[in-house]
Amino acid sequence: MVGGGPGAFIGPVHRIAAELDGKIEMVAGAFSQSAERSRAAGVAYKIDPARAYAGYEEMLAAERSRPDAIDFVVIATPNHLHLPVAKAALLAGFPVVSDKPATATYSEVLELATVVRNSGLPYALTHTYAGYSLVREARAICASGELGKIRKIAVEYLQGWLSQPLEATGQKQAAWRADPALNGPGGCIGDIGTHAFHLVEYVTGLEVTDVNATLRSMVPGRRVDDDCTALLQLNNGAQGVLMASQIAAGEENGLRLRVYGEKASLDWKQEDPNRLRIKRVDGPEEIRHAAGGYLSADARAVTRLPGGHPEGYLEAFAVLYREFADGLIAWGSGEAYGLPKTLPGIVAGVRGMRFIERAIESSKSASWVEF
Amino acid sequence: MVGGGPGAFIGPVHRIAAELDGKIEMVAGAFSQSAERSRAAGVAYKIDPARAYAGYEEMLAAERSRPDAIDFVVIATPNHLHLPVAKAALLAGFPVVSDKPATATYSEVLELATVVRNSGLPYALTHTYAGYSLVREARAICASGELGKIRKIAVEYLQGWLSQPLEATGQKQAAWRADPALNGPGGCIGDIGTHAFHLVEYVTGLEVTDVNATLRSMVPGRRVDDDCTALLQLNNGAQGVLMASQIAAGEENGLRLRVYGEKASLDWKQEDPNRLRIKRVDGPEEIRHAAGGYLSADARAVTRLPGGHPEGYLEAFAVLYREFADGLIAWGSGEAYGLPKTLPGIVAGVRGMRFIERAIESSKSASWVEF
Amino acid sequence: MVGGGPGAFIGPVHRIAAELDGKIEMVAGAFSQSAERSRAAGVAYKIDPARAYAGYEEMLAAERSRPDAIDFVVIATPNHLHLPVAKAALLAGFPVVSDKPATATYSEVLELATVVRNSGLPYALTHTYAGYSLVREARAICASGELGKIRKIAVEYLQGWLSQPLEATGQKQAAWRADPALNGPGGCIGDIGTHAFHLVEYVTGLEVTDVNATLRSMVPGRRVDDDCTALLQLNNGAQGVLMASQIAAGEENGLRLRVYGEKASLDWKQEDPNRLRIKRVDGPEEIRHAAGGYLSADARAVTRLPGGHPEGYLEAFAVLYREFADGLIAWGSGEAYGLPKTLPGIVAGVRGMRFIERAIESSKSASWVEF
Amino acid sequence: MVGGGPGAFIGPVHRIAAELDGKIEMVAGAFSQSAERSRAAGVAYKIDPARAYAGYEEMLAAERSRPDAIDFVVIATPNHLHLPVAKAALLAGFPVVSDKPATATYSEVLELATVVRNSGLPYALTHTYAGYSLVREARAICASGELGKIRKIAVEYLQGWLSQPLEATGQKQAAWRADPALNGPGGCIGDIGTHAFHLVEYVTGLEVTDVNATLRSMVPGRRVDDDCTALLQLNNGAQGVLMASQIAAGEENGLRLRVYGEKASLDWKQEDPNRLRIKRVDGPEEIRHAAGGYLSADARAVTRLPGGHPEGYLEAFAVLYREFADGLIAWGSGEAYGLPKTLPGIVAGVRGMRFIERAIESSKSASWVEF
Repeated sequence: MVGGGPGAFIGPVHRIAAELDGKIEMVAGAFSQSAERSRAAGVAYKIDPARAYAGYEEMLAAERSRPDAIDFVVIATPNHLHLPVAKAALLAGFPVVSDKPATATYSEVLELATVVRNSGLPYALTHTYAGYSLVREARAICASGELGKIRKIAVEYLQGWLSQPLEATGQKQAAWRADPALNGPGGCIGDIGTHAFHLVEYVTGLEVTDVNATLRSMVPGRRVDDDCTALLQLNNGAQGVLMASQIAAGEENGLRLRVYGEKASLDWKQEDPNRLRIKRVDGPEEIRHAAGGYLSADARAVTRLPGGHPEGYLEAFAVLYREFADGLIAWGSGEAYGLPKTLPGIVAGVRGMRFIERAIESSKSASWVEF
Repeated sequence: MVGGGPGAFIGPVHRIAAELDGKIEMVAGAFSQSAERSRAAGVAYKIDPARAYAGYEEMLAAERSRPDAIDFVVIATPNHLHLPVAKAALLAGFPVVSDKPATATYSEVLELATVVRNSGLPYALTHTYAGYSLVREARAICASGELGKIRKIAVEYLQGWLSQPLEATGQKQAAWRADPALNGPGGCIGDIGTHAFHLVEYVTGLEVTDVNATLRSMVPGRRVDDDCTALLQLNNGAQGVLMASQIAAGEENGLRLRVYGEKASLDWKQEDPNRLRIKRVDGPEEIRHAAGGYLSADARAVTRLPGGHPEGYLEAFAVLYREFADGLIAWGSGEAYGLPKTLPGIVAGVRGMRFIERAIESSKSASWVEF
Repeated sequence: MVGGGPGAFIGPVHRIAAELDGKIEMVAGAFSQSAERSRAAGVAYKIDPARAYAGYEEMLAAERSRPDAIDFVVIATPNHLHLPVAKAALLAGFPVVSDKPATATYSEVLELATVVRNSGLPYALTHTYAGYSLVREARAICASGELGKIRKIAVEYLQGWLSQPLEATGQKQAAWRADPALNGPGGCIGDIGTHAFHLVEYVTGLEVTDVNATLRSMVPGRRVDDDCTALLQLNNGAQGVLMASQIAAGEENGLRLRVYGEKASLDWKQEDPNRLRIKRVDGPEEIRHAAGGYLSADARAVTRLPGGHPEGYLEAFAVLYREFADGLIAWGSGEAYGLPKTLPGIVAGVRGMRFIERAIESSKSASWVEF
Repeated sequence: MVGGGPGAFIGPVHRIAAELDGKIEMVAGAFSQSAERSRAAGVAYKIDPARAYAGYEEMLAAERSRPDAIDFVVIATPNHLHLPVAKAALLAGFPVVSDKPATATYSEVLELATVVRNSGLPYALTHTYAGYSLVREARAICASGELGKIRKIAVEYLQGWLSQPLEATGQKQAAWRADPALNGPGGCIGDIGTHAFHLVEYVTGLEVTDVNATLRSMVPGRRVDDDCTALLQLNNGAQGVLMASQIAAGEENGLRLRVYGEKASLDWKQEDPNRLRIKRVDGPEEIRHAAGGYLSADARAVTRLPGGHPEGYLEAFAVLYREFADGLIAWGSGEAYGLPKTLPGIVAGVRGMRFIERAIESSKSASWVEF
């Protein structure tokens, strides 16, 4: 793992998620750019002290020459390091699992996509929410045509943790996100807007063709956007409304997707992830519960517990790692390259960065722009 | 009452709501343009057969000369008749309670506003949702500053009943709403978008200054919009997102308002009207229940039952009638004219029609327009 | 109406409910045992001053000799007057609508049942919750066999308003309920336990055959029970658990019924009355919404508004009055006597009083007793 | 680990939970009484093949003599093996983590308690629900006196998976639970009733002094109870109602605890574990969310993620393992023996078995029995 020392939010999450299903073990890392702090992280993570490196270049070089080298690299750094680390890892022959967004800017992701393609190596992007069982169910429902032709999409991702200028207090999570040099130009739109955008395309199977966005920075002094609305035109004629905010006071992690078709609609909320609601024009509302025997094969494949035993964020995250591990094993044993289609990869990465770039452009021009 | 024969949806609702608190009794009506049908409606409503008139002109003329004349006129017709009936009633000296929107077009409402002003007579508009106890509480909360400065508003009004071309089947409610001549130019934006718009200004006390709307007609052959999104700029710097749709398959009457301030937010849903949620940046979520002893005086004033005894749409509607009756009594007894500020009147009517007109204009030009 | 002056909770509720559907008008009353207060109530209710009587005997005598006499009597007094008023009304030839419980004691209700039978007059008991549309749906579901054989019933009615010794403060509602002479021997078990008991038999169509109850008085100094649990044996072999409490701090009017059959279960909550949940052993959860086109005829018959327009307690109450009015009209026009089976009558009254008597007996003996 | 091969439900759960926080690694096991199947399980779990033993005696003997011996034993077998395995492990000097109930019968648990006491070794019982953050919060609330004196407790644990005679189909989970020889005499009361019972004493800090239970077997041919109700008398004068059922068709894992005090009440549902509701006699309802900065130290100590990132059953389970690991480390380093009081141990085990025994006795005699 590169980045993600124990002080960080996302590092321990990656560790738990990766190891949850017993298929992956974290054995090495460059957890910090300070050698000392990286070593301390290694101790906390109980890895061999010799494999707690001071930097990713050192890690890649050292691991390449070990007989028991790592099988892949996890990137859990701030955004501006995603490209250099991913590039170096791929060039060194290591598959990559990267936190999102794929890079800091759109031009960077185009470069990365070329490297991935040329390397022939597996690359996955941890759009966590794609790992929830009932997101898979929602995807299966859209594909099945059960909703009829999709007409309208409402996605929202509302948080309130940046309602105050938290970055000014030195809070680590807030500080790098508020600095365009470390984070890239998109604030809220990049941090959580991309999750919402990805969820739309992932679940519906549709593609966004045009965007009309308004990005604002509501907290005085903040250098990136913290509140975003984007109208989306989709390639089947449907329209969508995307709201993302980090100044929605009192909200925690309010990701919600509603998809309206001609005949029915679905509704999924991340904060209540084990229930999926289906409403029909003529008929009672239906709630599908995680682990139900009546769910699609895709949904059942990523449930670990019987109904009524709630699974949450860590389990969803772990689904992505399990799929990556399974893909890696197949790939390692000579099978043609192919991560499961349910696992977000570089294509999702490119589209996500494009979304940020187009949303900023649209907001500047106060008009619709082609995607 | 003009319009609202027993076959209609809104007529019986007006009758029940008006009479609920025992202050008003329906005694006359021009329920239909067919004399026969109007008489039949009179029988169903149990009014004196002599007072079931064939048209509103006849009703106004006859009632003017009765010693026990009606005290005011209720307008429950399709939109295109709102202006002529309201005008005639006011000119005949009768106060008016009108269903919304105030008129069919913006130019009409300007004319009506002049008539109202010149007449000096009470005029009220039944924006039903303003009658809910917890909408009053939400309004009191915004006024109190408890949320801090308001930054973001999300209002949605989602219905699914026009997912299919219902107007083509002759269904009465759908038919006139889909005909611009009877309904006015705004379909969904006029029918329910105005409710959502009114709720925003009513609860927050803010005013919309700019609009960027996208109106669409998703059902083939439909002549008015059935799905709308509007970005709102408010006069304190806040922004808003308004979604209104009648093709949101599976939704019933999904009006919901969320208001985000610097410190806290509130969330009210019409389909769960007896609970109001408050979320704070630092603190637990709070649910205020209708009839709670801790509610504001404005909220408690419009509750009839103890906590846990649900009140709904009819009771909210009846609150508006009760306020009108009280205002009328005060006015009749020589007090200076003044309906309570909590009761929507002609100003709300003008702003609602302006909203429709500006939203259509913005959608045509695909850009922001001043309000 | 006898009792129910404007100061009371239930009087205005009866007035609104009776008049809601435009079939009944309140024209006379003996609202208080004080002539003055009864007159004042008559003014508030806008009835003819001559018909605001000082006592029920006076009212019955006077009305009998009027050509425009009342059509029936509503009893909204404390419990100890239910029998004398009902008896006098029936003997005077007036049908009766009585608040529940039917009388103060079991022996009284047996006497009343004889009077009702001998009179041949309509008698109805306002078990309000029987008027909710989705309670009718639940009843239809049980009758249809959709749940399979019923095995288990869980009913609860939890309130918290008597958590403190409110009766000691002189609060009127609490005072008479806490006085066995006015209320009868059953406190919580009589006031709300009977509602829960009635709902069980009303919805399932089963009959209780044995009871094992524990009644307690948790607030020091209180003379009647305020917290009750009763195990129920039903005539098909099912068992039930009934909880009723008035010291469940923080609860408002928490009546909830769950019925478990071999194949599926249903769940209805009075505080969310427009949704009914069905859960199946193999299949998604289902929520039926009031006014759904897919509901049973019985449920649709008692809905006044389209889906998504919440109806509440007053509307449910009004359903009982509408059914009574319809029954009365049929009966008055020479039809054989027959109130609809959906309207609780004297049989429900007898069973309710029997339930109180048996529960008290069981609690005293700390054992099961036959019903 | 003893028992819990990959085919089992609870084995993989123990593995994931134990390893989640990176403090424990599963290195050995006697997963099945068949040597072959145990070996296969070892492969699936990726442990050293030499440490996948054919039986627990073999495992204990072999591990004792290894320098890298296991640190403790996990028991994940059917109930009848709990005593012999725990006894053997403790006598061999290994601390024990046991699935609940502690043993198959009450006399067994008394024997086990002596062994634990004599061994001086740590022993923990996985009452999973004690690991939820908001259960810890509920416990802190009760201890703080915020609710006032506790008067009433309602706990329910409703499942529907045994609505049909699943044991007759050979389904493994159902089969051993329905066999008194493997499971012990208490069916539903032992399997889930004990969880509910434990939660009551764990959260409130009160002790049950008397029980009045009714246990039934509703599915023809079933040899153990599948539906239970128990009235509880607590040592502060409060009473409780406990419902446990495995034939509540449509329910999944419906564990819910409500505690009513003089001033307020709390309400927690396992299927919505990240929210805890507090209702007060005078005041709005409050929802505390997992990870809220305002929660008690005990609750915050067992949360891994920021608010809005749902944690579920596996994470709760892992909390128990983390506390055990921390206790073990302290103990191993010479500290006086002492697992945290928040971790259920042998005392909870004894009380749980006593509850089963007393409930059965009460049900047989149809009367209250002392605990």
